[in-house]
Amino acid sequence: MEEFVKKYKSELLENVLPFWEKYSIDKEFGGYFTCLERDGSVFDTDKFMWLQGRQIWTMSTMYDKVQAKEEWKSIGEHGARFILDLGRDANGHWYFALDRTGKPLVQPYNIFSDCFATMGLASLYKITNKDEYAQVAVDTFNRILERQGNPKGKYNKAYPGTRNLKGFSLPMILSNLSLELEHIVGTQTVEKLIDEIIHEVMEVFYQPESGLIMESVHLDGSFSDTFEGRLVNPGHIIEAMWFMMDLANRRGDAKLMDKCIQIAIRALEYGWDQEFGGILYFKDILNRPPQQLEWDQKLWWVHLEALVCMAKGYAYTGNEQCKAWFEKLDAYTFSKFSDPVYGEWYGYLNRQGQPLLTLKGGKWKGCFHVPRALYKIYEALESKVPAII
Amino acid sequence: MEEFVKKYKSELLENVLPFWEKYSIDKEFGGYFTCLERDGSVFDTDKFMWLQGRQIWTMSTMYDKVQAKEEWKSIGEHGARFILDLGRDANGHWYFALDRTGKPLVQPYNIFSDCFATMGLASLYKITNKDEYAQVAVDTFNRILERQGNPKGKYNKAYPGTRNLKGFSLPMILSNLSLELEHIVGTQTVEKLIDEIIHEVMEVFYQPESGLIMESVHLDGSFSDTFEGRLVNPGHIIEAMWFMMDLANRRGDAKLMDKCIQIAIRALEYGWDQEFGGILYFKDILNRPPQQLEWDQKLWWVHLEALVCMAKGYAYTGNEQCKAWFEKLDAYTFSKFSDPVYGEWYGYLNRQGQPLLTLKGGKWKGCFHVPRALYKIYEALESKVPAII
Repeated sequence: MEEFVKKYKSELLENVLPFWEKYSIDKEFGGYFTCLERDGSVFDTDKFMWLQGRQIWTMSTMYDKVQAKEEWKSIGEHGARFILDLGRDANGHWYFALDRTGKPLVQPYNIFSDCFATMGLASLYKITNKDEYAQVAVDTFNRILERQGNPKGKYNKAYPGTRNLKGFSLPMILSNLSLELEHIVGTQTVEKLIDEIIHEVMEVFYQPESGLIMESVHLDGSFSDTFEGRLVNPGHIIEAMWFMMDLANRRGDAKLMDKCIQIAIRALEYGWDQEFGGILYFKDILNRPPQQLEWDQKLWWVHLEALVCMAKGYAYTGNEQCKAWFEKLDAYTFSKFSDPVYGEWYGYLNRQGQPLLTLKGGKWKGCFHVPRALYKIYEALESKVPAII
Repeated sequence: MEEFVKKYKSELLENVLPFWEKYSIDKEFGGYFTCLERDGSVFDTDKFMWLQGRQIWTMSTMYDKVQAKEEWKSIGEHGARFILDLGRDANGHWYFALDRTGKPLVQPYNIFSDCFATMGLASLYKITNKDEYAQVAVDTFNRILERQGNPKGKYNKAYPGTRNLKGFSLPMILSNLSLELEHIVGTQTVEKLIDEIIHEVMEVFYQPESGLIMESVHLDGSFSDTFEGRLVNPGHIIEAMWFMMDLANRRGDAKLMDKCIQIAIRALEYGWDQEFGGILYFKDILNRPPQQLEWDQKLWWVHLEALVCMAKGYAYTGNEQCKAWFEKLDAYTFSKFSDPVYGEWYGYLNRQGQPLLTLKGGKWKGCFHVPRALYKIYEALESKVPAII
């Protein structure tokens, strides 16, 4: 796998990170531009908290894990200053979006804004040791735990009691977030959350009949024959499985590792588009028409997370199916998403695999999935010896 | 145009209305199923207020205008009973969605639920003369006017003051709605609303530089270089133009009629997909990447509204460009959307013009645009003599 290590490392260092260093910094008002055209030109100046927090995380993590490049640390601090000064309402909840100058545009209805702000600040604390970052990270983390039961607060449009479903996203993020905050919140908090989340993901949201993980289930874990309940997001399952593999590795739990690999491969087979290649964005478990008009599109993060998952599956266990899937995914993904001309990756392809939008960043795509995945992939493949089994 | 009259009439009476008569009635719990597969089988039982109200309107209007078929009246009353009994919260606001049995699922965050409930009840009053329908219609209409300033109420996620935009949808619907309620609210109310709306649509939302109508503008009508402000929805412009043509006709205003035709043709030229045919769903006025991943899809209602608009433009003025566009649209639309095997029309095609989803109804597509358009088209083409000029 050596040639892959080289390829992914050079993609990260030469084709992806320079793009964000060059085009995303708002030197005038602070924070990051994320709405970047194919060539890096800014096409919109709104600032979305998800992507501000995520870029802080990416820059700090690259500094921490890849190379102690002062510029990356300073870009991280540049973003942190902006969100710390302007990103929260009076209760400490994080706005969803600000305008270029930092005035609030969209209220704190979305708890993932808080999740990514915390994640960014916690990682920046790791490389700077500045208390302010740790303090806000832990405050926000506690607020997230408090809001778990009704994350949207007054913006929740579901009528209480008629259909009580729970979603798979928040537990997933919390497991990842707790690991990111372990140096601040301590191992005990992390271990307790991990116990709960492994149970939720691998037993409650996991559906034995299909071998897949559902996006939403009834509170007792049973199947809901509704639009939300029938929804399968293969990329989300596969991403979750590498989170879980990391937990299996942490705990030396070979049985859990094996189950993760099985589910991930099942999700890949289920999500793979037999006609045009690539992984479909959404499917309905009963083959009914999904609500999402974008169901047949090919998204960058889905394919990158699948590469991470297969790289880790192979690195942790030597499983040959993981290796074969990694190679198949690599061939599709690199040729379709990576842009060797202007750098970074396209985000959205149509079913046929052509760019549907030429943007490199937007409201939902920023400096996060591409660099995180490239790094995680070569890190996994560099570790020659399987960690467990 | 006689062959078109025949074609659209038989499509309505033989291919479309029978589909809804046969498959959409929930005899057990009341109201209508709208989530119907290609062959009419029910794939989801949730009941969305937009579509409940719209089907009441369609059935009543078909009874009123096409044929006094008792079954249509009775289907209208069947839906009305269900929504009158179960559709409103304690304040008289209409829920967005109910479950099959009528329990509320989604809160009244969306004022269009109220608009379509009113529209349905008002048309049913016209053919039944039952006071209850008129009373609830007028009460709801007044509540809509009260809520105009902040239609989403507490569910509004925009932070007040940072970016005050106004949208084109609500004024549009209100103009149409006031006409639908003229027999209840009186001509004076209607005329006053019409004055305001002609001004808003044709001057405030209209952008002289591009010749198009924007979805959102600043409160003073100026352009907003933001995702919302740059958005163009060609189908929406074209639909609005036939509403406006009807108003121009009502007032004998040839200048307004002429401007409507110009804008509609401009929107058709702008929205037409030169590569694959059909009208694109969304474009960005500055050619920046739109936020909507479904931007390149071809939607049923867009094409039907365009046919209505060109049929009316031709009928009202004899404009030959309208006739040519009507014929071009007819060729694309009939061959791609209509399903002669199982009846009704596909709703969503991919850019290439193939069905993206095979459903005939769902969360947003019900018994409304197809029958309304088919009726309006042959009605317009039947009127041989241009009404004005």
